[in-house]
Amino acid sequence: MLAFHNDYHAGAHPDVLQALVETNGAALNGYGDDEYTVLAREKIREAIEQPNAGVYLVSGGTQTNQIVIDTMLEAWQGVIAAQTGHVSVHEAGAIEFSGHKVLTVPSYDGLARADDIRNYVSMFYDDPNHDHMVFPGMVYLSYPSEFGTLYSREELIEIRRICEEFSMTLFIDGARLGYALGAQTEHISLPELAQIADVFYTGGTKLGALLGEAIVFTQRLDGKTLEPKHFITQIKQHGALLAQGRVVGVQFNALFTDNLYTKIGTRANMMAQRVVNVMNKHGFESYIVSPTNQQFFVMDKSQYELLTTVATVSLWEPPRNGKYIVRMVTSWDTTDEMVDTLDAQLNN
Amino acid sequence: MLAFHNDYHAGAHPDVLQALVETNGAALNGYGDDEYTVLAREKIREAIEQPNAGVYLVSGGTQTNQIVIDTMLEAWQGVIAAQTGHVSVHEAGAIEFSGHKVLTVPSYDGLARADDIRNYVSMFYDDPNHDHMVFPGMVYLSYPSEFGTLYSREELIEIRRICEEFSMTLFIDGARLGYALGAQTEHISLPELAQIADVFYTGGTKLGALLGEAIVFTQRLDGKTLEPKHFITQIKQHGALLAQGRVVGVQFNALFTDNLYTKIGTRANMMAQRVVNVMNKHGFESYIVSPTNQQFFVMDKSQYELLTTVATVSLWEPPRNGKYIVRMVTSWDTTDEMVDTLDAQLNN
Amino acid sequence: MLAFHNDYHAGAHPDVLQALVETNGAALNGYGDDEYTVLAREKIREAIEQPNAGVYLVSGGTQTNQIVIDTMLEAWQGVIAAQTGHVSVHEAGAIEFSGHKVLTVPSYDGLARADDIRNYVSMFYDDPNHDHMVFPGMVYLSYPSEFGTLYSREELIEIRRICEEFSMTLFIDGARLGYALGAQTEHISLPELAQIADVFYTGGTKLGALLGEAIVFTQRLDGKTLEPKHFITQIKQHGALLAQGRVVGVQFNALFTDNLYTKIGTRANMMAQRVVNVMNKHGFESYIVSPTNQQFFVMDKSQYELLTTVATVSLWEPPRNGKYIVRMVTSWDTTDEMVDTLDAQLNN
Amino acid sequence: MLAFHNDYHAGAHPDVLQALVETNGAALNGYGDDEYTVLAREKIREAIEQPNAGVYLVSGGTQTNQIVIDTMLEAWQGVIAAQTGHVSVHEAGAIEFSGHKVLTVPSYDGLARADDIRNYVSMFYDDPNHDHMVFPGMVYLSYPSEFGTLYSREELIEIRRICEEFSMTLFIDGARLGYALGAQTEHISLPELAQIADVFYTGGTKLGALLGEAIVFTQRLDGKTLEPKHFITQIKQHGALLAQGRVVGVQFNALFTDNLYTKIGTRANMMAQRVVNVMNKHGFESYIVSPTNQQFFVMDKSQYELLTTVATVSLWEPPRNGKYIVRMVTSWDTTDEMVDTLDAQLNN
Repeated sequence: MLAFHNDYHAGAHPDVLQALVETNGAALNGYGDDEYTVLAREKIREAIEQPNAGVYLVSGGTQTNQIVIDTMLEAWQGVIAAQTGHVSVHEAGAIEFSGHKVLTVPSYDGLARADDIRNYVSMFYDDPNHDHMVFPGMVYLSYPSEFGTLYSREELIEIRRICEEFSMTLFIDGARLGYALGAQTEHISLPELAQIADVFYTGGTKLGALLGEAIVFTQRLDGKTLEPKHFITQIKQHGALLAQGRVVGVQFNALFTDNLYTKIGTRANMMAQRVVNVMNKHGFESYIVSPTNQQFFVMDKSQYELLTTVATVSLWEPPRNGKYIVRMVTSWDTTDEMVDTLDAQLNN
Repeated sequence: MLAFHNDYHAGAHPDVLQALVETNGAALNGYGDDEYTVLAREKIREAIEQPNAGVYLVSGGTQTNQIVIDTMLEAWQGVIAAQTGHVSVHEAGAIEFSGHKVLTVPSYDGLARADDIRNYVSMFYDDPNHDHMVFPGMVYLSYPSEFGTLYSREELIEIRRICEEFSMTLFIDGARLGYALGAQTEHISLPELAQIADVFYTGGTKLGALLGEAIVFTQRLDGKTLEPKHFITQIKQHGALLAQGRVVGVQFNALFTDNLYTKIGTRANMMAQRVVNVMNKHGFESYIVSPTNQQFFVMDKSQYELLTTVATVSLWEPPRNGKYIVRMVTSWDTTDEMVDTLDAQLNN
Repeated sequence: MLAFHNDYHAGAHPDVLQALVETNGAALNGYGDDEYTVLAREKIREAIEQPNAGVYLVSGGTQTNQIVIDTMLEAWQGVIAAQTGHVSVHEAGAIEFSGHKVLTVPSYDGLARADDIRNYVSMFYDDPNHDHMVFPGMVYLSYPSEFGTLYSREELIEIRRICEEFSMTLFIDGARLGYALGAQTEHISLPELAQIADVFYTGGTKLGALLGEAIVFTQRLDGKTLEPKHFITQIKQHGALLAQGRVVGVQFNALFTDNLYTKIGTRANMMAQRVVNVMNKHGFESYIVSPTNQQFFVMDKSQYELLTTVATVSLWEPPRNGKYIVRMVTSWDTTDEMVDTLDAQLNN
Repeated sequence: MLAFHNDYHAGAHPDVLQALVETNGAALNGYGDDEYTVLAREKIREAIEQPNAGVYLVSGGTQTNQIVIDTMLEAWQGVIAAQTGHVSVHEAGAIEFSGHKVLTVPSYDGLARADDIRNYVSMFYDDPNHDHMVFPGMVYLSYPSEFGTLYSREELIEIRRICEEFSMTLFIDGARLGYALGAQTEHISLPELAQIADVFYTGGTKLGALLGEAIVFTQRLDGKTLEPKHFITQIKQHGALLAQGRVVGVQFNALFTDNLYTKIGTRANMMAQRVVNVMNKHGFESYIVSPTNQQFFVMDKSQYELLTTVATVSLWEPPRNGKYIVRMVTSWDTTDEMVDTLDAQLNN
């Protein structure tokens, strides 16, 4: 079976694994105070061109979202997200578990729109009873979105403007950020993203690491970051401080060496476009075409049955009216041979 | 100024106040273990025809919703509510503060629809990833709704059926329940409501008491209730256990003596219909007409300015396109003279 | 039976009740925006000689403690309290429910000692691993304590100094503050207390009101208070915002008129001293003698049985080795006749 | 420098690392549904001789404690722990963050005593006001303790008995369980431990893995476990569900192959005894001697300065009165050569 069901089905990219092997014997400090974590932080700061950014490594995406949102929001604030945002739907209530409401705006192929956000917030402040409501304190965007789609530079800047106007922070969930940076379409650069977002994370789990996400508190115009006080203590309080912090530090050091991070993204995106071509050629209609590594197709039952004899894919939602929405994903371990085989086997 | 802005602008109904005065000197046990609270509980059990129901008195509506939802839901569960439900919008995130997500379905003049609820829940269970989502564990209905509207018997029974089918509890927020019971249109009786709901509360704050809400865990088919264990301790943990529990007990004892509760509702509803007639007669268009004590009107700016020189009303949402949505509310202290004066003064 | 079991067994002081009756018919704004709440706030500000203090009225003591501690502490901070402090023992975990740890120091007849607090905090900061521990962010003192005892001016000032040295806020729980102010022994004045504490509350429930506590954020040296932002919203989020805020406002307006608050305390304390005299005279040994309205006695089983045929008292802890620790409490409704009767009946 | 500061300073045991390398390329299911996690679970069940035990893998110890305690306790319950227990002191309030109070009993070299636990719980239930207090719902024991010490079989069985008598669950924190199992002194076996505890975890982070802890819900007398419902969803809600669950599964599969887990413990314990001998020989007084891999010494300043030129150690608490309490720890990577070098260098 060809593995196209997600981008975390394989272990680590060979270079990342190699780094783990090579550093295994070293006696290091715990809790992120080791030299590899220090190096990883430094390289991320260089990549975003912000020498004072705050960088912290944790193990998973939902964990990251919970910690960032809970520690950056005030108690009376909620976070605005698209209805399809990961924090809205697929985190088992982790945001609410930490006391905060997710305030939703419509989703367009995974993307929130600046106009909807502005409308939500201005209606809130116009409401005479807003003291009895949850204050919007942050905007959460997934980039790429859960559907692989990307915000344009203009849209991101407009959302940034709204955040400033209404004193909200902007948090960009980059669980798959490398795929955005590796997109062949026009897109913002990593330093631009670090200027637009108050905080973002760049994910390892879905981009060549065994696990790990790097939270980045970016420098604002005054050169300072919005990093929450005693952030290490707060990570610990959320149960997320790894004793062997090195396990993530070593991997991120590798990912941010020679731009491996973006290279993985670029290559996977190319594979994804080949998958789209093959699928379309065989009569599978695209449902959402994205410039990144996630592609969605809509098909009938017989097509679905054929496809699933050839490849593992992800059924995106319960079939309705005989229509199956299927996600196919590429990653660092997707090869030309795999796509060729897909092509060949769908032929039959 | 004529007070039509809400149903808690005056103190207590005279009979309720009298009860407080008469019982003031008695030395009683604290924390709800006094004789008046015992009597109030008993009378509520009689009114709903359920001798084993669990009855608890607390002080406010948001508090009640937070406690009931938090103590009845499991940690991984959320509560389904209409988008306009009080728990969705106007409780400053009190439900999320206690760790639970509010799962919304569309609102039709304040009412959720059985079909939408069924659809939400069945889609949830059909979703292959639902283990990563918030389980729907309860349905929350406001009766009357925040717009004064009422569910039909059939709709309530259908929602009850869905709750049973999907192992959810049904919670009815009766902050204004007396107005529903006093409606002149066809509606369910209090014993019927107690059969349909697993838990409900009947409010005092907005119906003739200074403060107080009575939570009722109803008997299920097996004669038992779903009352959470150590409920007194849990009320205490939520900061809601009054030392002088009597202050609510005495008032509810009065409210449930000689059916005062429903009488207050009936009378206020009649006043509300008179208000509608007067308003319509003077060219104020109804926005939502309800069978209870809350009435909504839509008007232009000059009408709004006229009205607010005569009466205190509640501007329901920020004016848009020159249109003002206004709520007018009657209560135990609304008199025929007040409505006559409204009529006279709008004439000018 | 003579009621000596607590100071909230009777309703409201007659003047307080009268105020409720007289204001009952007025149409007022809700949520604490009524004229009586405004007056009560103003009178409390005058009583503490701080025109800019922030004053908020809520309904109960545990609720107050939970809200003050949760909204003033940062997420990573806990509150230091004596082991016998109300927040440590008798609030069913309400502080932990809102996410904060209670850090305990020894109790001496209900009082924490400055030395123990200093020791706790300096050990914390000396600990090389304190980033993995709960930061002490606040000191909580009960004044009077749960045993009726009072801190000296010097001790309070010393604790204040420690709080400043280690950037902690000082919160004084004055559930029974009027009894402290009415003590015949040397004690701090209300304006002094307001200078020492960053925040305190003065209780109504146990001092002549049906319910209600007044939270006061005091002016600091810079003239500003530490009042949490959007405090009304946060009260609402904790389920504690009363729609008819008047019910507490009217009562506190009465309590702070003509110094009724302190007068109730003074009188009850005098009665308490008479109770001590009577009890001692009849051979009941004092366990803790306090200058306020709570008195503790230790007795054997036969004495306990005699006493409880005469008066309702509070058994303070489970009897051990045949010794009964009993609390007797006076309040606004304790009369000379009651104490005389106690004297007479113990004689038999 | 010789690394003796903790047991997580090196990466993974070579066999564990090898397993990660060998399995890296395999395309596997996520979220713990991969074949290696399945194997690891099976081997743990075999090792404890309980075919129906529930086994779940997460990434860290504080996280494990938070999840187990929060999901097994009812909302109104707290957990009893020794004052020095990890959950009491060194988890930055992670237990309180999830709403539960840690109820402390005295610690004797890291161990709680059955008598103290029984006393605490029986006093609680004897207290007439216990409905206003936090119910003890679980006993938490560290085995080995934070000081390397072990409970005797008799003490564990007695604590088990108390738990049954008072309807509490027994949770054993085995972050370093392999060192207990590898102790040369008389101690319980792993199957015995699984009979005594309702839930325990066996740690990987401090015992040869890069990260990971295995939570085990044991079979009770009726053959069932106390595993919380929808446990995967609850892990997700706590932010602790790894997408590449394999990273822990592969490591635990290796650790529980050929008893590697206990072998690592046995060997490290032997090294620890050699360290004690060497230290004592050089005049360093033992503070606590344990049968496991953690050893404590007390020394004066000049000794401390000498030692820290030779080895990295852990200063256990702030020096007082010129006395330094130092922890030295061995692990899978401690060699005879290291101990010989320690011996040689302390000689100088």
